[in-house]
Amino acid sequence: MEDDRISYHESVRTVYKRIKEDGITNIWDRYEAQGMGSSPDRRCNFCQGGMRCDLCSNGPCRGDALKDKRGVCGITADGMAMRMMLLRNVMGASTYQYHTNQTIKTLRATAKGETPFKITEEEKLRNFAGRLGIDLSGNIGDVALKLCDFVEEDFTREYGQPSKIVELLAPKERQDLWKKIGIFPGGIQTEILRSTSSSLTNVDGNYVSLALKAMKLGVAMAYQSQIVNEYCQDIIFGLPKPHNMRVDLGVLDPDYVNILPNGHEPFLGFAMVQLARTPEWQDKAKQVGAKGLRVIANIETGQEMIQRWEMDDAFYGFTGNWIMQEAVLASGCVDIFVADMNCSMPIDPIYAEKYKFKLIPVSDLVSFEGVSDRLDYIPEKASEQAAKLLQMGIDNFKERKASVKPVTDLPMSEAVVGFSTESILDALGGKLDPLLDAIKDGTLRGVAGLVSCTTLRDTGQDSHSIAVAKELIKRDVLVLSMGCGNAAMQVGGLCSPEAKELAGPGLKAICEALGIPPVLSYGTCTDTGRIADLIAAVSAALGDVPVPDLPVVATAPEYMEQKATIDAIFALAFGLYTHVNPVPTVTGAPNLVKLLTEDCKDVTGGVMNVETDAVKAVELMLEHIENNRKKLGI
Amino acid sequence: MEDDRISYHESVRTVYKRIKEDGITNIWDRYEAQGMGSSPDRRCNFCQGGMRCDLCSNGPCRGDALKDKRGVCGITADGMAMRMMLLRNVMGASTYQYHTNQTIKTLRATAKGETPFKITEEEKLRNFAGRLGIDLSGNIGDVALKLCDFVEEDFTREYGQPSKIVELLAPKERQDLWKKIGIFPGGIQTEILRSTSSSLTNVDGNYVSLALKAMKLGVAMAYQSQIVNEYCQDIIFGLPKPHNMRVDLGVLDPDYVNILPNGHEPFLGFAMVQLARTPEWQDKAKQVGAKGLRVIANIETGQEMIQRWEMDDAFYGFTGNWIMQEAVLASGCVDIFVADMNCSMPIDPIYAEKYKFKLIPVSDLVSFEGVSDRLDYIPEKASEQAAKLLQMGIDNFKERKASVKPVTDLPMSEAVVGFSTESILDALGGKLDPLLDAIKDGTLRGVAGLVSCTTLRDTGQDSHSIAVAKELIKRDVLVLSMGCGNAAMQVGGLCSPEAKELAGPGLKAICEALGIPPVLSYGTCTDTGRIADLIAAVSAALGDVPVPDLPVVATAPEYMEQKATIDAIFALAFGLYTHVNPVPTVTGAPNLVKLLTEDCKDVTGGVMNVETDAVKAVELMLEHIENNRKKLGI
Repeated sequence: MEDDRISYHESVRTVYKRIKEDGITNIWDRYEAQGMGSSPDRRCNFCQGGMRCDLCSNGPCRGDALKDKRGVCGITADGMAMRMMLLRNVMGASTYQYHTNQTIKTLRATAKGETPFKITEEEKLRNFAGRLGIDLSGNIGDVALKLCDFVEEDFTREYGQPSKIVELLAPKERQDLWKKIGIFPGGIQTEILRSTSSSLTNVDGNYVSLALKAMKLGVAMAYQSQIVNEYCQDIIFGLPKPHNMRVDLGVLDPDYVNILPNGHEPFLGFAMVQLARTPEWQDKAKQVGAKGLRVIANIETGQEMIQRWEMDDAFYGFTGNWIMQEAVLASGCVDIFVADMNCSMPIDPIYAEKYKFKLIPVSDLVSFEGVSDRLDYIPEKASEQAAKLLQMGIDNFKERKASVKPVTDLPMSEAVVGFSTESILDALGGKLDPLLDAIKDGTLRGVAGLVSCTTLRDTGQDSHSIAVAKELIKRDVLVLSMGCGNAAMQVGGLCSPEAKELAGPGLKAICEALGIPPVLSYGTCTDTGRIADLIAAVSAALGDVPVPDLPVVATAPEYMEQKATIDAIFALAFGLYTHVNPVPTVTGAPNLVKLLTEDCKDVTGGVMNVETDAVKAVELMLEHIENNRKKLGI
Repeated sequence: MEDDRISYHESVRTVYKRIKEDGITNIWDRYEAQGMGSSPDRRCNFCQGGMRCDLCSNGPCRGDALKDKRGVCGITADGMAMRMMLLRNVMGASTYQYHTNQTIKTLRATAKGETPFKITEEEKLRNFAGRLGIDLSGNIGDVALKLCDFVEEDFTREYGQPSKIVELLAPKERQDLWKKIGIFPGGIQTEILRSTSSSLTNVDGNYVSLALKAMKLGVAMAYQSQIVNEYCQDIIFGLPKPHNMRVDLGVLDPDYVNILPNGHEPFLGFAMVQLARTPEWQDKAKQVGAKGLRVIANIETGQEMIQRWEMDDAFYGFTGNWIMQEAVLASGCVDIFVADMNCSMPIDPIYAEKYKFKLIPVSDLVSFEGVSDRLDYIPEKASEQAAKLLQMGIDNFKERKASVKPVTDLPMSEAVVGFSTESILDALGGKLDPLLDAIKDGTLRGVAGLVSCTTLRDTGQDSHSIAVAKELIKRDVLVLSMGCGNAAMQVGGLCSPEAKELAGPGLKAICEALGIPPVLSYGTCTDTGRIADLIAAVSAALGDVPVPDLPVVATAPEYMEQKATIDAIFALAFGLYTHVNPVPTVTGAPNLVKLLTEDCKDVTGGVMNVETDAVKAVELMLEHIENNRKKLGI
């Protein structure tokens, strides 16, 4: 396969060769077997265009908007495509909320002193609880418990009763709009139930109504799931602060026992690092002949961890995002792959057998064919569970070393990670003004939030994400990156201070003045909520500028799954100009396409850009930014 | 189109001709346009076989189990098919639960005296609350409120905490099994969230695990959603008791103002009947030139109503199930179509315009393209809302009469409706013994629960359901029918005493002795929970016979949508021999097919029969019944 269809990263291309030599199934070959791109004879155009439905036994049906060909029930192609998109959004929201529930469970147990963790950020806890109107009396544990009660009550708030979290956190201007157009949400669990029920056959076949429901769910998700989740994780595990982190496949050293937590929930990952940092556990690893024991961060569990904790020899580094998963596993360096919610591929058992590592789910959500061992996370048992997992890794080392030839000399670099609202304020000397001044005087043209995954649809892993980011920084747009797409930036070198050379003169000057890279590593996909909160602060600091009028854009250059789709829908509800690639499966639904790419502007101020060419897409984003600058008179 | 591809019912075939003359889109033509049956060039075999996935941007992917061709992420065809089935189940469970939430809201408001309804069945309330261990002190309103609190707490019970409702209602033997295989559920809302999250890309790709999650959700749904819902509706609106009901399209008389509540939630339907029965409202109708005002029951909202309330001139009769919807609407007799949750087709606005009736959603779940008026149900405003709806119907009458030529002389017949556990016990003189004795001595070979919809996949509307029911009663199997499939029986004549002539000699004798039809109309699809409760009672009465060993089967001869799929999955978890038609979209997933049709027997005792031929399917059901009779020594 051509290099540029594999990955932007040399490391991955190197291991791909090994995988091919080993003749083992892999994502690149599987992608090719489905048909590259949108070749009509290999990929189904009805599926690709979203104009199909297989929900009921009268189907499968195909829709055709041009001929008013409808499903058997009468649903249009627009209805089919939007209903399926709403279902994907429900899945994304549901998974975010699952993570949040786990975090609240962890915070509650931590407040009671029943976990190996502690309340690290008292000030953040008091700030956040204060914003939610929670009584701050009592010790810090009491405040934490009151916070847990407050948010849990909101999650299940009755339909039609406005979410208090949204009322207390979202910009006033957005709240008024959401009320006006009927998308101010109740409790997230109630909204999930409502959206799912609306998607049933013969319930809601109206693409406009379905799109509004998706946005309503998106608002609930951003504030109740994402912000609550990240802020409570900050409270337990620490605020993200900028620091260096080793990245890329070179962080894997076959001579160490390598423990890889993987997914989105960092709880057991943090618990394992706590233990791995003790001489006792390092000794255990040495006793089986290893140089030591290392926890290696991966994907979003990794992002959650590296944004908050510094690296050392026990918490060694970060590999990258999900498309390099098989490369990680085939490196011959992995002793245990600890799979929490999301991002562990169904193919992993085949790799575990071939490359001799232990594969173990730690969330009841996760399951693999043929893998029966599991250790579902329980906050109160986190330390004991972490110990068991480390021991499994240690026990695996000898056989893996004896039977698997590792790939060596893989590249490694360093990235600056750990930006957050608080740490950006720190970097700016405590207030937003230097950043706002730079925007006002035109040194910076604007800011882009890059929330993305990675996909093989149009290019190899991360190539398109890197291309879009480069075009943005070249045009003096500061990029804040989140999600698997953040790993693209980190491993691809854009989160390093040296990347300032790729920036335009204005951004370069800012980078030099503040000592920051042109792309700020801002965490995981769950940090989308955090950035909404930052944008609200910017809007307020500029004198309550409505979100759609800010010189700010969102971009998902390689979105992949259902969390990304709900993020994008939230961005539209939030009023952002939102670039999305690959083209979503809606192209067979012309009215829906018009709604998302044109009409939405008049409803929420948000608008979707689905330009597939990186340069053209960024030019369109700049057009939006420059128009808004003019509107603001800056 | 051939008559036998349209409908079993002459009435529908008659109106179909009118629809064709009017040149308007209709379900039969739309079905034909998608390709009849499974013609490979018209229907997509990948969709039909379930071996496809379009959840993420690396897709759409096709799977092929024979070639181990997997999705880009590595998921197998088995994983794809079961994951999509789980998602359908989530939709079904979610919608059932929505209805239950609405019922509890209504009960709560009724207990406070804030609705036009009252607590009709004090004894049932006390019995049910007693089974749930609720303190029965205080007045009946207090008990009702305690019941509401109790069930609502259970719905959101934390994951991992066993549902109290299931613990208190399900047979002990089932509970032990469900605990053993890890499918004893927590709160339904929590289970919905867990199942949805499990379906995300790269979370659970294991078809066995996904199938177990579906069953767990099914158990939660049957006890928490269905039983709670039906019993609480009984408490408010009355226990179903056998009585005659006019059925078929002939219930529509163009000279009356015809008000058609449609969907699944009967609240506004009942409120409208209460008003329509007053001289005041009859007079209002007469003032616009109508002979009077009639509420006509439809689909499942209709089933909920007709099983509980007697007919009269204001609550006149019942049309039938959802596939005859366009025939109902094209009859030229409808003044207002009141759409609550589910079963109002996306095509309805086109009919509303053509045949001059008012189309109005009364649930926030429901929406139609181009219809902006709505009146979402609020228990406290039910009377006022009902009045508004009746007035809209009355206001519509003149224009409809002036501009639409009605179809007249449509057939009408009468069916016995209103069987329930309580009313069957009544018919048997207060205890189950006469029925059990008849089963023990072989007069009756067994009992079949027919829970079905109606679909055009294999035959015209209801033809296959009627065929299966006829084969069952011919073999002395008593049929209890629920759902849209129940309407097939009612309109098709099998719920009439005269249908005993189609029964075998044993069943015929029972029908004569008890004065019942061979097919007992047992309510809606939501009554699946009620029948599980009845089966548990039968199992206990026979000396705690495990459910899989009873001479009982379940059949869904024409399942259509997502509520039906979760019913079927529950039946498997409950240990029932379960016949399902059309063949579900799993045929491209051989391991999953084996799991459902063979291996499940050793897990839960349940087994799926997907025989498409009515005679053969019933022969297989009888084989199961006769084997169980031998096992029981009867």
